[in-house]
Formats: sequence, structure tokens, C-alpha cells
Amino acid sequence: MTQTAPTPSPAGSGPSAAGARPVVPRRGARRGAGLGEVTLAADGFWGSRQRTNATATVQHCVDWMERLGWLANFDAVAQGATEERERPGWQFSDSEVYKLMEALAWELASTSEPAAEELLERLTARVAAAQDEDGYLGTCFGHAGQEARYSDLEHGHELYCTGHLLQAAVARGRTHPDDDLVTVARRAADEVCRSFGPDGREGVCGHPEIELGLAELGRLLDEPRYTDQAALFVERRGRGLLGPIPLLGPSYFQDDVPVREAEAWTGHAVRALYLAAGAVDVAVDTGDEELLAAVRRQWDRTVERRTHLTGGMGSRHQDEGFGEDWELPPDRAYCETCAGVASVMVSWRLFLATGDVRYVDLVERTLFNVVATSPRSDGRAFFYANPLSQRVAGADVRPDEENRRAEGGTRAPWFEVSCCPTNVARTLASLQAYVVAVEGDAVSLLQHASADVRVALDAGGELALRVRTAYPSHGDVDVEVLEAPERPVALRLRVPGWATGAHLLEESGTTTLEPGFAEVRRVLRAGERLLLRLPVEPRWTWPDPRVDALRGCVAVEAGPLVLCAESVDLAGGRDVGDLELDPTAGVRSADGGALVRARLVDQPAPGPGGPGAMPYAASGPPVREGRPVDVRLRPYHRWAERQPTTMRVWLPVV
Amino acid sequence: MTQTAPTPSPAGSGPSAAGARPVVPRRGARRGAGLGEVTLAADGFWGSRQRTNATATVQHCVDWMERLGWLANFDAVAQGATEERERPGWQFSDSEVYKLMEALAWELASTSEPAAEELLERLTARVAAAQDEDGYLGTCFGHAGQEARYSDLEHGHELYCTGHLLQAAVARGRTHPDDDLVTVARRAADEVCRSFGPDGREGVCGHPEIELGLAELGRLLDEPRYTDQAALFVERRGRGLLGPIPLLGPSYFQDDVPVREAEAWTGHAVRALYLAAGAVDVAVDTGDEELLAAVRRQWDRTVERRTHLTGGMGSRHQDEGFGEDWELPPDRAYCETCAGVASVMVSWRLFLATGDVRYVDLVERTLFNVVATSPRSDGRAFFYANPLSQRVAGADVRPDEENRRAEGGTRAPWFEVSCCPTNVARTLASLQAYVVAVEGDAVSLLQHASADVRVALDAGGELALRVRTAYPSHGDVDVEVLEAPERPVALRLRVPGWATGAHLLEESGTTTLEPGFAEVRRVLRAGERLLLRLPVEPRWTWPDPRVDALRGCVAVEAGPLVLCAESVDLAGGRDVGDLELDPTAGVRSADGGALVRARLVDQPAPGPGGPGAMPYAASGPPVREGRPVDVRLRPYHRWAERQPTTMRVWLPVV
Repeated sequence: MTQTAPTPSPAGSGPSAAGARPVVPRRGARRGAGLGEVTLAADGFWGSRQRTNATATVQHCVDWMERLGWLANFDAVAQGATEERERPGWQFSDSEVYKLMEALAWELASTSEPAAEELLERLTARVAAAQDEDGYLGTCFGHAGQEARYSDLEHGHELYCTGHLLQAAVARGRTHPDDDLVTVARRAADEVCRSFGPDGREGVCGHPEIELGLAELGRLLDEPRYTDQAALFVERRGRGLLGPIPLLGPSYFQDDVPVREAEAWTGHAVRALYLAAGAVDVAVDTGDEELLAAVRRQWDRTVERRTHLTGGMGSRHQDEGFGEDWELPPDRAYCETCAGVASVMVSWRLFLATGDVRYVDLVERTLFNVVATSPRSDGRAFFYANPLSQRVAGADVRPDEENRRAEGGTRAPWFEVSCCPTNVARTLASLQAYVVAVEGDAVSLLQHASADVRVALDAGGELALRVRTAYPSHGDVDVEVLEAPERPVALRLRVPGWATGAHLLEESGTTTLEPGFAEVRRVLRAGERLLLRLPVEPRWTWPDPRVDALRGCVAVEAGPLVLCAESVDLAGGRDVGDLELDPTAGVRSADGGALVRARLVDQPAPGPGGPGAMPYAASGPPVREGRPVDVRLRPYHRWAERQPTTMRVWLPVV
Repeated sequence: MTQTAPTPSPAGSGPSAAGARPVVPRRGARRGAGLGEVTLAADGFWGSRQRTNATATVQHCVDWMERLGWLANFDAVAQGATEERERPGWQFSDSEVYKLMEALAWELASTSEPAAEELLERLTARVAAAQDEDGYLGTCFGHAGQEARYSDLEHGHELYCTGHLLQAAVARGRTHPDDDLVTVARRAADEVCRSFGPDGREGVCGHPEIELGLAELGRLLDEPRYTDQAALFVERRGRGLLGPIPLLGPSYFQDDVPVREAEAWTGHAVRALYLAAGAVDVAVDTGDEELLAAVRRQWDRTVERRTHLTGGMGSRHQDEGFGEDWELPPDRAYCETCAGVASVMVSWRLFLATGDVRYVDLVERTLFNVVATSPRSDGRAFFYANPLSQRVAGADVRPDEENRRAEGGTRAPWFEVSCCPTNVARTLASLQAYVVAVEGDAVSLLQHASADVRVALDAGGELALRVRTAYPSHGDVDVEVLEAPERPVALRLRVPGWATGAHLLEESGTTTLEPGFAEVRRVLRAGERLLLRLPVEPRWTWPDPRVDALRGCVAVEAGPLVLCAESVDLAGGRDVGDLELDPTAGVRSADGGALVRARLVDQPAPGPGGPGAMPYAASGPPVREGRPVDVRLRPYHRWAERQPTTMRVWLPVV
């Protein structure tokens, strides 16, 4: 069989198209592979999702935003018609348009679909037409019949929207030469610098995002003013510049403690994580080691004590926020999809800055169990929140129904606050960026996915690989060298933290691997194959005893996948709340999931004292009748795909 | 020793002053004793609180409402100055004024403090002056510079405020003849009937309360139109008459299911409970057995599965609402003080309607563990939410500081949304109403409190009792008969559901009692004594295994009191999170609380995998070092009285 090296398709025809990617720090030798350097296989776990994203999700989002008038908001500004038309959507609906444009721009780095190119150009034109003379761009403030610009920094989301505009422009600018969107973004960024620079207003936005937008645009355009402005916004945070916020308090928008002093992430999870991502960008570009160390410390503390098994972040619905240490209720886990996306953004930046594999481990956990959980298989419906337990099967959402946030039914096509669909879209569109990293002559396979890889080595030459795997269903990752320089290079394969007993099989023999990076450093020959064998058999996972909400429970994971039980898999209309697991009986693989031995308990009538009796008694837990059953556990990321159901990740131990 | 029968002090000099009380159903032979028929002893648990309420809390609330301008809102309307003055306070701040007036009116039923009488008259004059020509009364809508009346039924709280006005007027009207406040209320109620009657707008208020206000005013004034209007509001509920509510959905304000169809209480707890109270009033007065049965069914289901050990209701902060069945997290228990007050209102009405002792049991549990928990001992600071676990010691609130809702520090003098202080005030001011019930020739001692009782029997004559007890610290309740008719009467003593092994000691011997009512039916002689002996020694309490959040934990109760551990009682700065209880070692009484044997655990560094490792591992819970300690548990209702502290009601079992 003849193997042909894949040729990156530089659809964006600029010179940097193959290497284009999110997050390009000004300093540091480590870089993510460009979107044109990695092609995800269409039948792989991620490649198929990326394809669905391109062929279904993007248009789905456009259709909804046309239908709801969020796109027309730009036309109204362009036509000076803001006074006569009631503006639909929340203050931040512009950002959904920008995130979708970012998705399109990344998508076009690896495809050259004319319809997508045309769509992006059309959107760019509509957005550009709404830009004010002085560069301000926003459809909610500052025009006839609207409140004044920046009159509600706490809740107005103006700079938040601008940040997303900048991210979209960065995506476009890195994948396409001299684009209008970059011009628009430059003018908008200049307006922000004038309004909020050292001589401007000492303010910050209630929702962080402008920081990383400015930092990335500063990188694209090599414009230190933008980096400085990003640094200024990061530095101003936590100093009480935002007004009082009813009921929640300043930690909601991270205005209680300066970024470099905070010990953990608090308040609204997406806000906290976007801010952290911007802080890393600033810290790396300016060489601010203290700031970088602060974010790393916050990551440690938050992952140790405030992160759900899925990688999901956010334990509270009230403020979509982090809870206290050890406050990790499975049923009320919020784990907003956007917080998952934002967590990937932070961890990815920290990996680039440090090379620490733990960050990549969390990226994997979060991608498989939060980001992949949100979209339905057809890419036309989404989860907003991702709890680890569902006590009551929710509603089967209609295809035309705008949903609230955390209902627990099936996935919804759109939301009142619809940040998640476009966030998923831009993440999937750029997913291959997180798969491979390059540092000098070392190429690291970070995420195990079927992909064709051809990366330019910093010291010259290219390394081309064909990676084939059924991971995460199967643990074998087959890496074939297609092309390599005639000098020693390093191929590094990530062994996830959970992978006890992984092996690397080469022609020369088999090596047992420890978690971390397994490195092969030698001259690689075209045609040779390496096989990474990861133990993805299902395994028990136990919670720290300080997590009150999980006391007496156990979960099952298989490779990077968190598994769950769904009532729809139980016979006789029984509920997952009736299950008690027997961990002594072992756990077996079963078709991408697991089979476990459990006890199906007969629940007594409520209350030991009869109807209306409280669920508390003077004697210990009653002996309940039950019978042994085998229970099928399935990947959490596909829960509620078949129908509304109750669900549990953590199950009580017999 | 000569015993003198107490003479009720009819401060409100109307003929019905001694028998005045909240909740006077039009039908049914059972009634609560009048406020003038029961005098709580000043040194008793409840009497001392009632005294503090009268001498400190009432003026404290007036001072805050003057300071914040909530009282001046009425003056602004009276003076036609609403356009030039920015109105302070939420839309519902009028209701705080009315609840305080209700407290004053009830207070004046048993005292004749001229300053209190003068204060109430002054408040009445200010309120009356703000009433519009057509009877509408409200300071937030319908005047110059304000939104139109009833233009925001979802959130405007206009009918909610009117409901509280009506309750205040009922309190005044039952304790004082021909008062201006009653006239004001009648005009307001007439306006409501015109606006929302059968020929008016088919609407309901986003926050129930008008229903029970109208029903009670209808009873006072013998006006069936008000009862009919209350019935109409109850019937309209749950039919989607309220507009969409962002993020929360119609169950938030009980507009998803008609009252007579609902299976359990859902949504915002105070809303649900006020509605239920109004529904019982309507059901009883109109003989609507189906409606009464519906509320009883909802009570059963909610108490079985949605009520915390303290009697607290509400498991969610997001909507201050009920959770799903079995969703009872101790740390995020909301248990709003007002929901405790409202739960007492519902259960009291159901007891009057049915005589079922379970309702009185819940009243006791809620009074001791929610209502008594809220106010600080000096009556000048309050808890708004009453969680059963506090992981992080909150702030020590300053005496001049308006607080948010659920901070977990010390009690706060006032809140942004300050419904709780005045709700506590009106409850404590009328507390003796819940202590004794009369039905024919039967007198029931429902709550065990030191009190002097002189009730008129329905069949003629009076029964006078002197009750003395250190309950709940001590289980002996000493009842002395001071005066009794010369015919057989029934004296019924409530034996709480938890009281296994209670006894009644009479001269004739000792009787072992079952939970429920212990009845002595015979001719009672002046001077004879009965001693009820209740087992208030501390005891273990175990949760139903379906309450996930309490798995593996146990609590300690003593009599009606829920106990808790506070870090402030642990040596060496140790935390309540480090405790594991050993239920095999027994539990001992200790000065109003308990001493239990526990293990003080040394917590390992977070994460089995070092800093930044997730709190999940492939092996079961680690063996942790620890040493045995005796831990003092104290009544939950006094937690955080000394200083901010961490706290737990439910503690893990070793």
C-alpha cells in the first residue's frame, strides 16, 4: 500500500495559512500546530464532529440569528434605523455573530468551501457597515434611541463583544491576507485604546474577554499598544472599579481581588476563565512571571477542589459560578459548555507557556466530557449546562424552540442566552490546533485522534505522520511516519494521567510508559510505525472524602471518557436513583461503555413514618429489598441523545 | 402559695380583643386561642423573644425604613412629589412597612404600650395619605413619573403589597375598633375587586399574597366579595396568565400548574407557600374539599421529599426555590426565613382545617429551627437564608451594613431585599396564637411554652392554666389548672412525633404516651397539676438514602432542636470539615446541646496526585490519620451568634 503524505490545503492563501492557529504567543519556543498542518480524519471522533460543525452547525447558527434579528441589529445601525426598531436579543448578542465568524474563519483554514467564504464575506460586510466613524462597533449602545456608549460597563457587555470581534478578526487575519475584518477590528481596538487607555477612562468591562482579544490582535498586527491595553485591563480588575451588583457581589465579575493576588477562580465561571486566558496572554507577552504564576496557582486550586469529574467548571446556577472548595454537587453542577470552552483556552495557554502535561490532560478531559457533550450528533441542538446527575427527565425540546439554560431535557436548538452553540462552533472549527505541538525538533501528539499531520520543524524540514486510532473507544494509537528529516528528531506521545500500564510498541521492542510524555528521540524513517497502547478499559473512580456531595459514591471512567447510567437503559421503567453499585464485582468493557454489577433497590414509600413524614429517622438507613442486575454505562457525552432520561455519573456503593 | 388567674389584657379595647388572632376561618369548630387568651412568660424561650421583638426589633425596622426612605415613599405620593424624587427601595418595599404595622397591631393586642400605639397611628396616617382617590395604594406605580398601575404584574409586586396591607388591617381590625387602617384596606380591596374581578382584567400577581389578604379581610368584614376575589386569584393561577420569565420559567411564580392539580410545591418557596396559605383560606371558607385536599397532598409530598431537617424549605439559591424531590443539599440549603414563616402559616391553616397533629409538629420544628434562627439575640440582626452547612466562615457584618442574602457570616441588620426582619417581627408578635387551640370543650396545648392561659370554651366558661417549662432545654412541662368549669373538659397535650417514651404524670398515676395528642377528659380541679415529661435527650437522626447530599452522614437532635457543630468550638483552629462522628459511642446531653465522640481527621494535601490533581482517584477513599475528640454540639438556632464560623448539622459517620 502506498502512503502519500497529506498536503495541507492553504485555503486562506496567505503565506501563514498552514501554520495559522489560535493563540500565538510572542515569546516561547513551544507552539501549537497550525490548522493546515493537521487534518482530522473524517471518520474519527473529532474529525466527524468538525465536519458536522462545518456542514450543519454553522448554518444552523446563522439561521437562528437571522430569524431572531440579531444579524439585522447590525443593519439597523448601518441604516441609522435604531430608533424606529426595537432591538431584539440581549446586550451581548453581537458576540454570537462574531464567534460564528471566528468559526467560519478557522474552518476556512482547512477547507475552501466557496459558500463558507462567501458567507463570511457577507457577514463581514454587514458588521463593517455598522461601525461608527470613530471605530466603535456595537448594536446596543450609542446610537439613536439607545443608551450612551459605555454607560453600563457592569452589564452592557460592550467590550466583551468587541473582544469577540477581535478574536474573529485574528482568526481571519491569520488565515486570509488583508481582510476587511482585520481593518474593522483595528479601528475598533484603537477606539477602545483611546477610550480606556492610560489617558482615558479607568474602567473595565463586567464580562472579561476584551483582554485576550486585544492581546491576540496585538500579536497578529505586532501592535504593542493592544498588548499594553490588555495588560491595563487585567491590572485594573479586582479593584472595585465596577459598581455594586445586586445580590451577587463583586466576585461575580472578578472585581473583588486583583488577578495576581487571587488564590482560586471565583464568581461567574466563564468570566473568570476568559479573564485568566487574557492574563496568561499578557503575562507571556510581557514576561510577567508573577502574573503567570498567579494564574497557575489559581488553576491548581481550582482543579484540586472546584472542578467536576468531567472537567466541568461551575457548581452554582445562581451566578453560573464556581462554588466554595469541595462544593461539587453532581445534580446542580452547572458546568456550562462555555466554561468548558474557556477552560480549554486557559489550559492550552498554560501548556504553551510551561509545557506541563497536566494542562493537556485537563484539555482532553474537558473536550471529551464537556465540549463533546454539548452538541447533538447532528450538530443542531446543544446543552448549555452539563450536570452530572439528572433526577427528573426533562422535556423533549422542539426543533423550533428557544430554550432556557439548564432544563435537563434533550438538547435545545437555541437559547435565550445563546453563547454556547457558537462557542462550540469556533472550538470545533479550530480543534486540530490542540492536537499537536511543536518545539524545536520535537513534535508532541497531545490529543489522540485520527489525523494526517505535516508540521514544519523549527530547525528546518518537516515531519509528516499518519495517525489512526479508534480512541477513545479503543486504546491503540497507530502512528506511521510518512516523512522525516534525516537527523534525530523527537516524537512525543502523551500518556494521560489516568493511563496506568500504557505501552509503546516499536520494531525495536515494547516499552512500559508512565503518565506524561513518552519521547522517541532518534532518526525517524519514512514507513516506520509506532503503536501507543493506552489502557482504556473501564475503571472505578473514587471521590476525595471532602467532596460532601459524592460521599459513598463511585463513578466509572473508560480512558478519557466519564461514563454514566441512564434510566432509558433500565428495564421496567426503573430509575437510576434505584441503583447501588457493587465495586467488588468488577467492571467489564461493553461496546464503548461498561457493564457493572449493581443492586436494583426497591424504594420504600417515602418517609419512615408514612405519608407526609420527613425523610429523617431515628434509626439508620433502612434495609431495602433489591435484586442484582447488570447495568450498562455509556459515555456521558452522549447522554440524553436518545430521549429525555434520568442520569447519574456518580452512583452509590452497595 | 396563692395562684392568681392571669387576666388577659385587652389593649385593643374592642370586644374581640382577647380572642383576636391571625387566621379566623369562616367554617370549622377548631380555633386558635386569641392573643389575649395566652400570655407568654417573659423568661420563656418564646416569651423572651417576643419581648425582644417588641422592645428592639420593631423600632430597629422603623429606623432602617426611615433611613432608606421606604417610609418617605408614602409621603412622596401623598405630596404628589413622585416625579422630582427618585424612589428608593425595590418595588415591594411598601410590604415591609405593612408587615411592620401588622407586627405592631398584634403586639398591641397583648400590651398597651402608648409609644407603640402612637407609632402605629402615625404609620397609618402616612400610609392613608398616599391612597389614591379610587382606593389604589402603592408607592411605585401609577403616579407622576412612574410606570402605569399593573403594567408589570410579573415583577411589580403591587397586589403582593396590597395583600400585606390587608393583613396589617386585619390585625388592626381584630384588635382595635373602627380603625382608619381597616378603612384604607377596604378601599384598597374594593379597587382590587374592580380591577381584577369577574368583569375586570384576568390577571394574577407574580408574587402571591393578595389571596390570603383578601380572604382574611373578607372574614374580618364579613364581605364575601373579597373571598370570591381570593378564590378567583387562586383559580387563575397556573394557567399561563403571567408573561414569560427569563431563565426561570413559569414554575418560579407557580404559573405552570393550577393549584388544585399540583403534586408538590415548586418554584420560589415563599411564593408557593403564600399561595398555598391563601388556597387553604379559600378552600375552608368556600367548603372546597378538592382544593383543600390538593394543598394537603402538596404538603405531604413536600415534607416527605423537599424539606430540610430544620423544617427549612428551599434548596436553590437561583430562584430562592424548592428543588426536585430529594434535592436537599445542606450547604446550599436556602431555607429562607420568610419561607419558614410562610410554612408556619400554611401548616397552621391545615391544622385548623383538619386537626392533624403532623401540621403542628412541623410548625414546632420550623419555629425552633428556622424562625428562631433568624434574629440575633438582641433582635437587631437577622439571617435571610438558613443553610445547614457553612464551609467558609463569612464576614462579621457591621451594624450599619445592608447585606445581601446568603453570605454565611454573622446576622445582618438589614438586607437589600429585606423581607425577613419584618416577617419575623409579625410572627413573634402573634406567636401565642399558635400555642393553644380550642375546639368545643377541648383545649389543646400545641406548643410547649411557659405561658398563662385563659381561654373561653365554646360551650361556655373558661379554662385557665399556668404552664411552666424550660422546654426545649428540659422536657418537663408543668401544667397547673387555675380555673375550670365544673363539667368534664378535655385537656390535650401534644406529644411530638420524635418523642418516644413520653409520659404524663398526674396524681392518679403515670401514663406512657404515644406521639400525637395525649388527652385528659374529665372534670379538672383548680390547683391540680399535670406534668408532661418529654424525652429531650439528644438523639441520632439519619437521612433517607435517597437524599444524595446527606449520604453517609448523621445529625443530632435534642427535643425539637436541631443541633450543629461550629468550628468556633473546636480547639486549635480545626474545622468542622475535619470531623467524623462515631454513632456507636453514644451521645450525651451537655448544657442545652450535646457531646458526641468524633474523630478529628488530618486532611491530606489536596488531590492524590499532588498539587493541581483532581479530587478523584482510582483507589477508594484514603485512610486518613485522626484522633478521637469529644465535640460539643449546640442548638442550630444560635449558630454564628458568637462570631463567623464554619458549621455543620450533618456530619460524616466514621
